[in-house]
Amino acid sequence: MLEKIKDVKDLKDLNLVEKNELAQDIRKYIIEVVSKNGGHLASNLGTVELTIALESVFDVNKDKIIWDVGHQTYTHKILNGRKSGFKSIRKLNGISGFPKTKESPTDCFETGHSSTSISVASGMARARDIAKEDYSVISVIGDGALTGGMALEALDDVGYNKLKMTVILNDNQMSISKSVGGLNMMLSRLRTRKLYTKSNNSVKRIILRVPVVGQKAVRLVQKVKRSIKQLIIPKMFFEELGYTYLGPVDGHNIKELENIFTLSKKIEMPVLIHVITKKGRGYSFAEENPDKFHAIGKFNIETGEELANKSITYSEVMGDTLVKLAKSNKKIVAITASMKDGTGLTEFAKKYPDRFFDVGIAEQHAIGMAAGMAKMKLIPVVPIYSSFCQRAFDQIVHDIALTKLHVIICIDRAGITGNDGETHQGLLDMSYLRLIPNICIMAPKNLEELKDMLRFAVTCKGPVVIRYPKGGEEKIFNLESKKHIELGKAEILKLGKDVSILAIGKMVERAMYVAKKLKEKSIEADVINVRFLKPIDEKTIYTSIKKSKLIVTIEDGTIINGLSSAVKEIMIKNNLDKIRLLSFAYPDEFIKQGSIEELEKLYGMDKESIIQKIEKEISKK
Amino acid sequence: MLEKIKDVKDLKDLNLVEKNELAQDIRKYIIEVVSKNGGHLASNLGTVELTIALESVFDVNKDKIIWDVGHQTYTHKILNGRKSGFKSIRKLNGISGFPKTKESPTDCFETGHSSTSISVASGMARARDIAKEDYSVISVIGDGALTGGMALEALDDVGYNKLKMTVILNDNQMSISKSVGGLNMMLSRLRTRKLYTKSNNSVKRIILRVPVVGQKAVRLVQKVKRSIKQLIIPKMFFEELGYTYLGPVDGHNIKELENIFTLSKKIEMPVLIHVITKKGRGYSFAEENPDKFHAIGKFNIETGEELANKSITYSEVMGDTLVKLAKSNKKIVAITASMKDGTGLTEFAKKYPDRFFDVGIAEQHAIGMAAGMAKMKLIPVVPIYSSFCQRAFDQIVHDIALTKLHVIICIDRAGITGNDGETHQGLLDMSYLRLIPNICIMAPKNLEELKDMLRFAVTCKGPVVIRYPKGGEEKIFNLESKKHIELGKAEILKLGKDVSILAIGKMVERAMYVAKKLKEKSIEADVINVRFLKPIDEKTIYTSIKKSKLIVTIEDGTIINGLSSAVKEIMIKNNLDKIRLLSFAYPDEFIKQGSIEELEKLYGMDKESIIQKIEKEISKK
Repeated sequence: MLEKIKDVKDLKDLNLVEKNELAQDIRKYIIEVVSKNGGHLASNLGTVELTIALESVFDVNKDKIIWDVGHQTYTHKILNGRKSGFKSIRKLNGISGFPKTKESPTDCFETGHSSTSISVASGMARARDIAKEDYSVISVIGDGALTGGMALEALDDVGYNKLKMTVILNDNQMSISKSVGGLNMMLSRLRTRKLYTKSNNSVKRIILRVPVVGQKAVRLVQKVKRSIKQLIIPKMFFEELGYTYLGPVDGHNIKELENIFTLSKKIEMPVLIHVITKKGRGYSFAEENPDKFHAIGKFNIETGEELANKSITYSEVMGDTLVKLAKSNKKIVAITASMKDGTGLTEFAKKYPDRFFDVGIAEQHAIGMAAGMAKMKLIPVVPIYSSFCQRAFDQIVHDIALTKLHVIICIDRAGITGNDGETHQGLLDMSYLRLIPNICIMAPKNLEELKDMLRFAVTCKGPVVIRYPKGGEEKIFNLESKKHIELGKAEILKLGKDVSILAIGKMVERAMYVAKKLKEKSIEADVINVRFLKPIDEKTIYTSIKKSKLIVTIEDGTIINGLSSAVKEIMIKNNLDKIRLLSFAYPDEFIKQGSIEELEKLYGMDKESIIQKIEKEISKK
Repeated sequence: MLEKIKDVKDLKDLNLVEKNELAQDIRKYIIEVVSKNGGHLASNLGTVELTIALESVFDVNKDKIIWDVGHQTYTHKILNGRKSGFKSIRKLNGISGFPKTKESPTDCFETGHSSTSISVASGMARARDIAKEDYSVISVIGDGALTGGMALEALDDVGYNKLKMTVILNDNQMSISKSVGGLNMMLSRLRTRKLYTKSNNSVKRIILRVPVVGQKAVRLVQKVKRSIKQLIIPKMFFEELGYTYLGPVDGHNIKELENIFTLSKKIEMPVLIHVITKKGRGYSFAEENPDKFHAIGKFNIETGEELANKSITYSEVMGDTLVKLAKSNKKIVAITASMKDGTGLTEFAKKYPDRFFDVGIAEQHAIGMAAGMAKMKLIPVVPIYSSFCQRAFDQIVHDIALTKLHVIICIDRAGITGNDGETHQGLLDMSYLRLIPNICIMAPKNLEELKDMLRFAVTCKGPVVIRYPKGGEEKIFNLESKKHIELGKAEILKLGKDVSILAIGKMVERAMYVAKKLKEKSIEADVINVRFLKPIDEKTIYTSIKKSKLIVTIEDGTIINGLSSAVKEIMIKNNLDKIRLLSFAYPDEFIKQGSIEELEKLYGMDKESIIQKIEKEISKK
């Protein structure tokens, strides 16, 4: 059936049986491609019918469908001009795993971070009303994403202003892990209601038509009260906020979905359609382990086993170390914003359930809560992905740094992260954190140093940030920590005389390799593991750079306001003349998708490029 | 009565009549002091009885009361060791207008930005439970602050986890302007319920006890249904989220407040107490104009008139210019996060109600919505205070900059803002914005240039930021714009040969004054109005600085990653040797309260300090 479909327009020629057949074909195709390329499997298998029904009822070339987070748009891409291109999904120069306006006008807005879609849709609906145009605007948002404050702000605004638009709540009872929150509790009560079908009637109406007498009346009244509470109240939750609530509807029943979408078009006010889907639907391994198959690397379709030669990751080392530290230090607690497994906290959550907190996709609240805990002398550790931590920038400034509270923020997925592309690269964290007063920022050179830094962070007084990359270490030398972590002290790994190489985080091992290769060409280099971006070890760095003709900085982040900037400050402050600076960092732009290795090469951040560029710079004089 | 009260502990010796008398004394005292010092009047007059009742029932030395935003804590301060100190409120080295842990341990957490208190309280409550301690944790939050996503995230989490803590909803139907949002709509339905008194009973119980027969039963059932909907459903909103809802209660009735607070102590789960207060209560001018008296300068108590010699502000000029631009350009829309008047949008809202959007205290949603509008070819202008814009950092990166959407963000209250202190200084915006790819950042030298820049911004293609200070211009020269605003072009105001002075925003007039004074001492200076922090005019700046022995940068922001950093980048990139840089900016720390003039002097940012320091630097060689 998939072969017959050239374009989304062909959908209208299909009958229901054919559409269901198409769904199965698409599902098979997605499993096949993701098993080779890696990607977000479970969420995409859960939205095949939803997408087919949506794009049958709405016109993707006129109506605006905003997919929250956007990692569940594979079916949409296949139906809209990227059927064969889909094979290149997530690869360098290939199709993106998220909506991209450049790929197709039917990708009407770019998403990647959670909880933005209702806001964006509300802006579009308002633009439509101002222009007096006529099209539908639809936000498709998961129950997990609905715990994000931005989504709740928008939900509140749209209902109040009676904006004509539709929120499709894709309720799969999961974010990446199991969903949490009071709203979710309420949704689960809604889920138990009779599923929406076109024929079913208002149950209240039936109840209110029964005539009764005497004592029976009292019992009936009591029963009515219970019924009303059960039937109306959860639904009323959204109606109180200003929405017409439709559902719940089976998210894998194309016919009922089409019915409910068609009905929603007639309503001239905000509509919330509650769709129940199953993550991983149709692939048993994914249905059983939706969290494992949320975002997965290459896998064997027959066995469901991931093929990647998995090395130990920074996240795992963080988690393991934290479990050990928490054993003797009862003040340590761990907080996650819906990323328990991704950030390595699975074991901690099992061992110390009373000291583990998953607040849902709610980074702002996570940091605010950590501040309250720190104020009461707990030691909260908050592992969070670099690009998502941006959500809590104000909270880090206002609730933590201002009063120097001892919160440990572990920035995971820092630096280049690869195939998820622009929205998921962790290139900004050093820069937006370095400008905040009172903060201490570290980055470990390898897994071993992460352990040391975490141990050290627990003994600190104020806010501490440790940033580390996705995946495991790049083992070149297996460097040991030459000395204990000391606040604001760099580690001198090697002394030379010609070049001063200053590196931080995972780039330190690379710097050592570069120095080794340079030595083979009789170029002697200092190699300094900067360790602390803030407070930076000005003395050690100054001592090294003042004797050099060339300074080299290497960091896994943007060129603006990271290590390179900190070194520039030291140079200018000390009026260092006639010294050149060669900075290896990512340029001031959003970095596209590709494997980490490919992107590093593309941006001259790989070992060979670094060596070549240094040699060239030195040969200039 | 106020004279008799030495400390909050004395409250327990007062009877109700005396407490009410105390409330009147405190009210009078607050009006008196604020009329001299300026401050947040209306919200403080609204919370006098609430504070007295709270601190009568709870023990501020043991229990934790977190005041959201914190500008309503004057009564608390007066009752807790700062009765005479209160006279110095908001002054340099005086008592802060917000909770400060350094002032008193009874200020148990520092607030300033909105919507943080439930998160912080949840952290404290969890810390208490882990330590198996026994105290109450209370968040006092306004209905306005409840529209903030962070508060909604926390509300969702606390209810779900059945955390024992109390949320006191201080419902005055206002943020600074009138409250908005679906939640607020729901609250207004709750407000119309019979006020809570100790004696009133559950109405449902009464209804369910009436025996009935025949047709009457049907009518009763219908009536019960309506009653239940009206009586239970709004309340159920919070109960669905996991809270025991108590109220609404009259926030100026100390006895009923004490009753309900006492009752709440017995409940071992989350409690939400709905308190109805009146902003400005007891001072007629403030009751009538709560928004004017929200935050006010010195005023005449008898007439309610503000005494400050009000000059035209940047906010007003922005608003006026926008009104004019919007007349011919129908694509221009304005968005505010609950700051219509403060950001100068009053007139715009009146003239173009269909193109004006107040989304409540919801900065994230405001930016996300603007992105959706820009995608549909509107031109959204979002004026927002510098320190509050931090909340939308991720949205600016992810929803606007990534796809280069044409949204105009007007950063108001940028730079040093004065008496509100640490949480309200706008010193970070240039720094956190400059690190975002694709963004254009401008700052006008005076009111006239703000007009030019706004006009220019409308013609741009991607995201544009214009940042300008609190209040009006510092008129020294009444400089005209010598040439039109051109993307990335600085304006050369004066040529010299000894010093190159690079200034941005309000510091440009100051730079001209400095140059004039230096000339009197035979020191010739270039003065360059940088205009664009990004993209910066490297060519003009390079031409100026390469011929100088001393470069001076002057900016109203932090030293990290602002103009000074941009200039350092140019210096190093061009291997400029033997040139010294003298940077005038605020140090990397949180800047305390004081008048703008006092703080500028304190940090060497005033004209005289700048001149002295330049002279000294030049005389060195």
